[in-house]
Amino acid sequence: MRHDGRAAGELRPVAIERSYLKYPEGSALIAMGDTIVVCTATLEDNVPIFRKGAGGGWVTAEYAMLPRSTKTRSLRESKGRINARNLEIQRLIGRSLRGVVDFPAMGERTIWLDCDVIQADGGTRTAAVTGSFVALAEAFLMMKERGLVEKLPLKGYLAAVSVGLVNGAALLDLDYKEDAAASVDLNVVMNGAGGMVEIQGTAEEGTFNREQLDLLLDLAGAGIKELIRKQQEALGEEAVHLIESACRYGE
Amino acid sequence: MRHDGRAAGELRPVAIERSYLKYPEGSALIAMGDTIVVCTATLEDNVPIFRKGAGGGWVTAEYAMLPRSTKTRSLRESKGRINARNLEIQRLIGRSLRGVVDFPAMGERTIWLDCDVIQADGGTRTAAVTGSFVALAEAFLMMKERGLVEKLPLKGYLAAVSVGLVNGAALLDLDYKEDAAASVDLNVVMNGAGGMVEIQGTAEEGTFNREQLDLLLDLAGAGIKELIRKQQEALGEEAVHLIESACRYGE
Amino acid sequence: MRHDGRAAGELRPVAIERSYLKYPEGSALIAMGDTIVVCTATLEDNVPIFRKGAGGGWVTAEYAMLPRSTKTRSLRESKGRINARNLEIQRLIGRSLRGVVDFPAMGERTIWLDCDVIQADGGTRTAAVTGSFVALAEAFLMMKERGLVEKLPLKGYLAAVSVGLVNGAALLDLDYKEDAAASVDLNVVMNGAGGMVEIQGTAEEGTFNREQLDLLLDLAGAGIKELIRKQQEALGEEAVHLIESACRYGE
Amino acid sequence: MRHDGRAAGELRPVAIERSYLKYPEGSALIAMGDTIVVCTATLEDNVPIFRKGAGGGWVTAEYAMLPRSTKTRSLRESKGRINARNLEIQRLIGRSLRGVVDFPAMGERTIWLDCDVIQADGGTRTAAVTGSFVALAEAFLMMKERGLVEKLPLKGYLAAVSVGLVNGAALLDLDYKEDAAASVDLNVVMNGAGGMVEIQGTAEEGTFNREQLDLLLDLAGAGIKELIRKQQEALGEEAVHLIESACRYGE
Amino acid sequence: MRHDGRAAGELRPVAIERSYLKYPEGSALIAMGDTIVVCTATLEDNVPIFRKGAGGGWVTAEYAMLPRSTKTRSLRESKGRINARNLEIQRLIGRSLRGVVDFPAMGERTIWLDCDVIQADGGTRTAAVTGSFVALAEAFLMMKERGLVEKLPLKGYLAAVSVGLVNGAALLDLDYKEDAAASVDLNVVMNGAGGMVEIQGTAEEGTFNREQLDLLLDLAGAGIKELIRKQQEALGEEAVHLIESACRYGE
Amino acid sequence: MRHDGRAAGELRPVAIERSYLKYPEGSALIAMGDTIVVCTATLEDNVPIFRKGAGGGWVTAEYAMLPRSTKTRSLRESKGRINARNLEIQRLIGRSLRGVVDFPAMGERTIWLDCDVIQADGGTRTAAVTGSFVALAEAFLMMKERGLVEKLPLKGYLAAVSVGLVNGAALLDLDYKEDAAASVDLNVVMNGAGGMVEIQGTAEEGTFNREQLDLLLDLAGAGIKELIRKQQEALGEEAVHLIESACRYGE
Repeated sequence: MRHDGRAAGELRPVAIERSYLKYPEGSALIAMGDTIVVCTATLEDNVPIFRKGAGGGWVTAEYAMLPRSTKTRSLRESKGRINARNLEIQRLIGRSLRGVVDFPAMGERTIWLDCDVIQADGGTRTAAVTGSFVALAEAFLMMKERGLVEKLPLKGYLAAVSVGLVNGAALLDLDYKEDAAASVDLNVVMNGAGGMVEIQGTAEEGTFNREQLDLLLDLAGAGIKELIRKQQEALGEEAVHLIESACRYGE
Repeated sequence: MRHDGRAAGELRPVAIERSYLKYPEGSALIAMGDTIVVCTATLEDNVPIFRKGAGGGWVTAEYAMLPRSTKTRSLRESKGRINARNLEIQRLIGRSLRGVVDFPAMGERTIWLDCDVIQADGGTRTAAVTGSFVALAEAFLMMKERGLVEKLPLKGYLAAVSVGLVNGAALLDLDYKEDAAASVDLNVVMNGAGGMVEIQGTAEEGTFNREQLDLLLDLAGAGIKELIRKQQEALGEEAVHLIESACRYGE
Repeated sequence: MRHDGRAAGELRPVAIERSYLKYPEGSALIAMGDTIVVCTATLEDNVPIFRKGAGGGWVTAEYAMLPRSTKTRSLRESKGRINARNLEIQRLIGRSLRGVVDFPAMGERTIWLDCDVIQADGGTRTAAVTGSFVALAEAFLMMKERGLVEKLPLKGYLAAVSVGLVNGAALLDLDYKEDAAASVDLNVVMNGAGGMVEIQGTAEEGTFNREQLDLLLDLAGAGIKELIRKQQEALGEEAVHLIESACRYGE
Repeated sequence: MRHDGRAAGELRPVAIERSYLKYPEGSALIAMGDTIVVCTATLEDNVPIFRKGAGGGWVTAEYAMLPRSTKTRSLRESKGRINARNLEIQRLIGRSLRGVVDFPAMGERTIWLDCDVIQADGGTRTAAVTGSFVALAEAFLMMKERGLVEKLPLKGYLAAVSVGLVNGAALLDLDYKEDAAASVDLNVVMNGAGGMVEIQGTAEEGTFNREQLDLLLDLAGAGIKELIRKQQEALGEEAVHLIESACRYGE
Repeated sequence: MRHDGRAAGELRPVAIERSYLKYPEGSALIAMGDTIVVCTATLEDNVPIFRKGAGGGWVTAEYAMLPRSTKTRSLRESKGRINARNLEIQRLIGRSLRGVVDFPAMGERTIWLDCDVIQADGGTRTAAVTGSFVALAEAFLMMKERGLVEKLPLKGYLAAVSVGLVNGAALLDLDYKEDAAASVDLNVVMNGAGGMVEIQGTAEEGTFNREQLDLLLDLAGAGIKELIRKQQEALGEEAVHLIESACRYGE
Repeated sequence: MRHDGRAAGELRPVAIERSYLKYPEGSALIAMGDTIVVCTATLEDNVPIFRKGAGGGWVTAEYAMLPRSTKTRSLRESKGRINARNLEIQRLIGRSLRGVVDFPAMGERTIWLDCDVIQADGGTRTAAVTGSFVALAEAFLMMKERGLVEKLPLKGYLAAVSVGLVNGAALLDLDYKEDAAASVDLNVVMNGAGGMVEIQGTAEEGTFNREQLDLLLDLAGAGIKELIRKQQEALGEEAVHLIESACRYGE
């Protein structure tokens, strides 16, 4: 049994609140246990230089933590310290979300995803991916409503979760305490059909083998399915209907 | 009548939530209308070099806005852009709070106040001062509980509010729309006894005279009294009792 | 009596030299006692993006101190340290000067005001405002001479002074020694008609009340009147005549 | 057949030159096809703060590319641009190498691994891991020779390779052309016993499933075995002997 | 006799390899003894703002050292430290090479010269000048081949060498050991006709007189002649022929 | 005849004011024609790490220009732009002054020389060297007065001047107009005995030969002699006496 009473394959309590803020085109507050992330989606009528003339849009992400989202206070990045971990994470978020976006359908526009961690108790990067999907979907819904796009520029749902080996046991959705004790740590991003979009596995101690990897991917798959149900609840029936028709589009 | 139906001397709905986050020694979420600021207080067992050996503590503040707390997205400061407005505001917050701190009673310790704006609808700097007082008081309460200090190192309550002249009328607690239309903008920080700790007034158009200044300071005084009542409600009876005995201390 | 023999309402010796440098469109060297500031005004045939198409000009300021303008040497800003105090001051200078500029009359042009402190003995920011007015006026005079503007784009004179409470006494134009001992410090910017453009008051110790504020504003008003006479002497009769007709323009 | 005539499971020509430079404690030049990386290992008699008193050493890595190692010239990082890709890669290199280091056996020392790409034709990060192992081993051999350590502080060999799906085919050791065309890209780091230390897989287009992942991991395993043989050839018999006895140590 | 057996007027073994890398328009690897520098030339179809409309091209240089090219590891510049020595050297390289370029013949194009030191044993800046000439000539040859220019935009050969006084003796091409012991250090850049393009002499101890300067310039002249022969060997007969006709052009 | 009526070997009017500022241990204002530089010397009771335990002191310099010291306004360095020219110049100033300092006699102390250009009309770097010598001498005189050193830590006088070839004529002390037209530009630093401490010559167009170099060095030598007389006048008889006995010391 886990220190907080969860079963090995059980997520922490998940709460996703759509439209959390009033200014952004899309926004979501996601809590997975004590991990809390504000995700916003900002629409810009432009694409970066390397995408000009490519006949479609772009999605990019930024990730940061409030100084006291963690046990000890961290320096703000404005203090000139480059935070390599943040940069690595925001590249993962951007790459993952781009995996389910229909760029030609977006037109020459960019969505900026901002993920700001209010409180960090493990799994902030995967929570940021899951929450960003909701903010992104909201921004696309708004674009459709305003007539900027004909269909939602989405090819599928997307969510992420962490799994790991702790004292030899494969566990879903590690909190900070478990993460610190894990010998293997694997972040998995999947779409609604269970296809893998990104996997990142690290042995913190020793190595891992194919069997262990399989076990971890099974757990992750089940967890992501549940997270996508939570995204659907947060988005509401009408949004789900529009997303699903967009995903079927072109089949 | 104001665009949101308020009277000239009426605050927006104020909500202050104490202990908003689990890690910091003190924290508060303050909402004044649609302006939302997370304030945290972090204890460090050290003082900056210029305070070493001065026989007491220090309080310093940092202020930032989430990129999409505003109508248009702003660049993160990690992108190397110096944000002079943020620096000016954090200097005001630190200076103001230091005005009610009993440094010798703190011991050689520093409190870092972090004010992060989640949503900005005018008056973020004054909301940050008011919220920071609650986070600071919480950190001091924790220090007393842990036996680090004998009495709360506080000399009084502290809150802040903006006032301004809009179309010739003196108004309390301007929201963004009013602020943009104001000819004079005045930020006022007062302690619980109505003494001024800081005033900053700017004529955005034309100038202002002594009579207008008096009118604005009257409005601000009343507003700050009400804000201190809100701080007391958020802190709770026991905390209020301890703060009050600390403030009377030495009389 | 003050440590340098001045009366409470007496300025330090003031010297303003117009056209101090040969390249800038306007320049002034201002000395208030041992405080010395070089002010220059640079004309740029362009406005910042946020002013494009607004049908008028812009005025902005920068402020810095030579490394050894102070008792101890300070690091140059090129060393990557952000100097928040400098940024706060330059925002004050820019805001203040903009208070007396007739933007539509400037055309789509920018004036850059550079204030560089050669020696600092208290009151550098107010000396910078007072000196910048002369540099700005010179640049406008040159623009009129070259036929770039029909009238001087000025709506009034502008000067600034510091006042403060030192050992309970209200004093005008604090030098460094007095400033360090002051319990309240107030910087006041007024136009030629005595209207307030900016006030910034801080209680360094305790608080201040309305009566004290009134006393300080009286002192400041008298000091600023005298400073404007000094500006007029430095500018010379012909310039004064042109400024005055510009200020009356449109009445 | 691949564009350069290789079979699906064939590495590009691999050349590893030990002791490439005269100053560093360890160094290697690794070429995988046209990808060329200089790897150096620098010994420092110190550990970072977070490792002090932990009773052992540390290994950290930095990675950069010469401006014209690529088809188009890139800006130097000294120009103030943060290169997030480089930071992500150097975190991977450091994490991977730490996976086979026996920290207590190092003593309180740090090895800095510097990986500088002279020419980039795909797979620079995996070449950097493979080359860094040789530089690190050299530095450890030197430490043993100087009597700083009793045994080589190594727990195993380590090498890395990229694999990917290109037009549906699983290929080993992608060059730039193949990488650009790949729908799935997987970087794999394994130790000498075939245990996984790190895997990073990304679907550039669509998603990938478990079957495809298995295929790719098989290819990677075979490639890494061969790379470790190349490392052994470069290091020479005596070094191999010492590494192997270090790895068996404690069994 | 010198510590490595050379005569006073003898260069270290010189090796110049043309076309060292596959992507740049021009590249050379130069070794002078243990000093190794990679020089590349990148063609850009543009000129910097200050050269627009001047009817010709531009050549600029950047210089850096790999962190472990020296006895002790140096911080990478991306760490935010400005390296004034590198900046001084790259200004020297750019200025020197511009001395033999026929700008009007280049068209509105820029060549970026990148000099990256792989191993530093004294004389890296002069090796960088000598190697850059070869990379630059290669880029110009390629431009001619592609029909971008009618003639090579060169007015002469260019090479550089260091000379110095060590224990009273004038020596050619100092290595690091000699450089550290030199009382006078002189870097000389000359063209193929022996005309001086740049000289930089520094007395590290005491001063130097005209006689000593003459002695050093004699040595340098002979060394540079030999270096130009090495450049010609590296470039090959055909290139030499084209360069020579370009240099005679217009006589 | 030169555009300002000077003879080929004539300096511009030179004015050196000792003790220009009240805080620094040494300071001088130097004007050479319209070029004006403030030089200050700051004493620090410490040496940089690389000088610790070397049994002596250190001298280092910084150089900057006020934004509007030139015809067009330049960006402040605090804006994050590295100014390579400034860095090159400050390295020259520090190196030159160190050439006449008796480090063991200084004790473990550092002098910071700050050279800030108020107005630039050519020759700012050489004016900065000449003025810095006066500021440095003043700081040493103060150290002797306070009993920190037994003798002035000086081995000689030091001054610098620029010379150049303009339309084939060798000219002393170029102003900006002449500098812009010069085909060869040479900066020379000499001590009181006419020994060369540093020479930096650049052909802006074509090359220069030994004969021309000799001519230029002759002019420079005569100019520097005159500049040293000006330094002596500024320093005054008593200071000159002390400097001369310090320079003879140990003979």
